[in-house]
Amino acid sequence: MAEKAPLREVRVVGRVLAVNERMAEENRRRFAARGVFVVNVMSSPGSGKTSLLQKTLAALAPRVSAAVIVGDVATTHDAERLAVTGVPVVQVNTDAFGGDCHLAAHVIERAAEDLDLGAIDLLFVENVGNLVCPAEFDIGEDARVVVLSVTEGEDKPVKYPAMFRTCHAALLNKIDLLPHLDYDKARALAYIRQVHPGMPVFETSARTGEGLAAWVDWLLAGLERKRAAAGR
Amino acid sequence: MAEKAPLREVRVVGRVLAVNERMAEENRRRFAARGVFVVNVMSSPGSGKTSLLQKTLAALAPRVSAAVIVGDVATTHDAERLAVTGVPVVQVNTDAFGGDCHLAAHVIERAAEDLDLGAIDLLFVENVGNLVCPAEFDIGEDARVVVLSVTEGEDKPVKYPAMFRTCHAALLNKIDLLPHLDYDKARALAYIRQVHPGMPVFETSARTGEGLAAWVDWLLAGLERKRAAAGR
Repeated sequence: MAEKAPLREVRVVGRVLAVNERMAEENRRRFAARGVFVVNVMSSPGSGKTSLLQKTLAALAPRVSAAVIVGDVATTHDAERLAVTGVPVVQVNTDAFGGDCHLAAHVIERAAEDLDLGAIDLLFVENVGNLVCPAEFDIGEDARVVVLSVTEGEDKPVKYPAMFRTCHAALLNKIDLLPHLDYDKARALAYIRQVHPGMPVFETSARTGEGLAAWVDWLLAGLERKRAAAGR
Repeated sequence: MAEKAPLREVRVVGRVLAVNERMAEENRRRFAARGVFVVNVMSSPGSGKTSLLQKTLAALAPRVSAAVIVGDVATTHDAERLAVTGVPVVQVNTDAFGGDCHLAAHVIERAAEDLDLGAIDLLFVENVGNLVCPAEFDIGEDARVVVLSVTEGEDKPVKYPAMFRTCHAALLNKIDLLPHLDYDKARALAYIRQVHPGMPVFETSARTGEGLAAWVDWLLAGLERKRAAAGR
């Protein structure tokens, strides 16, 4: 029994992921056809994703037409916080989909139906707070970023390697708290480099605004590449 | 397609959970036969579980024979940190079990084979850092506790209600950081009470030791009840 159960679970997960992969490719084509740059934002619960997005949306507002799909197991708290920025926001509660610990491609497809994709340049997907499963579920995004709060300790990159290996950038957030923590930032950065050599890391504070300009520039560069590829 | 995928996934998860439930009951009988009180410790990544357990083990050491099974997707960092306390520690890496985002009952069964259960009073299981899936997987424990760091914001109890509803106690950790945060503790406590009225909440700092005595007393009371039930 103890020998069989894990194998069975792995096969089951394999089937779910194969279905997801197909639907993610459909999403990717749909987004590309409308020139939408899609950024999947992932992290532990409470790393500050929503506050970061609030500040990021404000910085992008004059230049870029943005929207957000935000996933939580329950509540519409994050959508309410993001709606004050004035951009279109769709809240997904995964308890309607079996309480999933991640956003799957079919959920993004459904949520995107509530958005006018033709009017959107940049779509953020704020994933469910979780460093494990969201890493495995392609949703049809162009860029994947992981937010890591300095309050979470240094070693998360090596403890959750799939997440850090598959992301295109990392944000080391809440750096305003560094003076109050026993935190070895050099060690955290070394762990990130160990798992994903060369990945850009932005040191940010959503509270003070520190470091947000470089992150916004990175987003704008990605958006420009997408536009150039689409011939726009 | 968009209509079918979630239902299929829910059925699949249902089968996995039914297998898990049977194996959890076997674990529970095995632990009860040897008088071992089992505490499942769950939280987000980086909430301070390992530091809390280090301090807790030190406080229990003169009175209680303890051990720890610690789960991570990858690395043995936490086992190394806990081993310095001198108690037996078994590290489980779920990347050997399909990269699971939780500890399942069959994994605990396997890990417990490496422990001398007859010599253990209190077994801590430090689960994988995740507020979603571990809540669904019974491992045969007597008590379930959730650790919530004050750096994670106030609303996690309502965003991850299954976790807070199924736990027997909550630890509000890192309270030494309160002076440096915009944190509304009364609101966080109200959210916990909303999801799980009457659940004990211990306000702790693993760094300063504040609040640990009440938590240790709660553990000792649970251990005493288990011993009384077993007629020891």
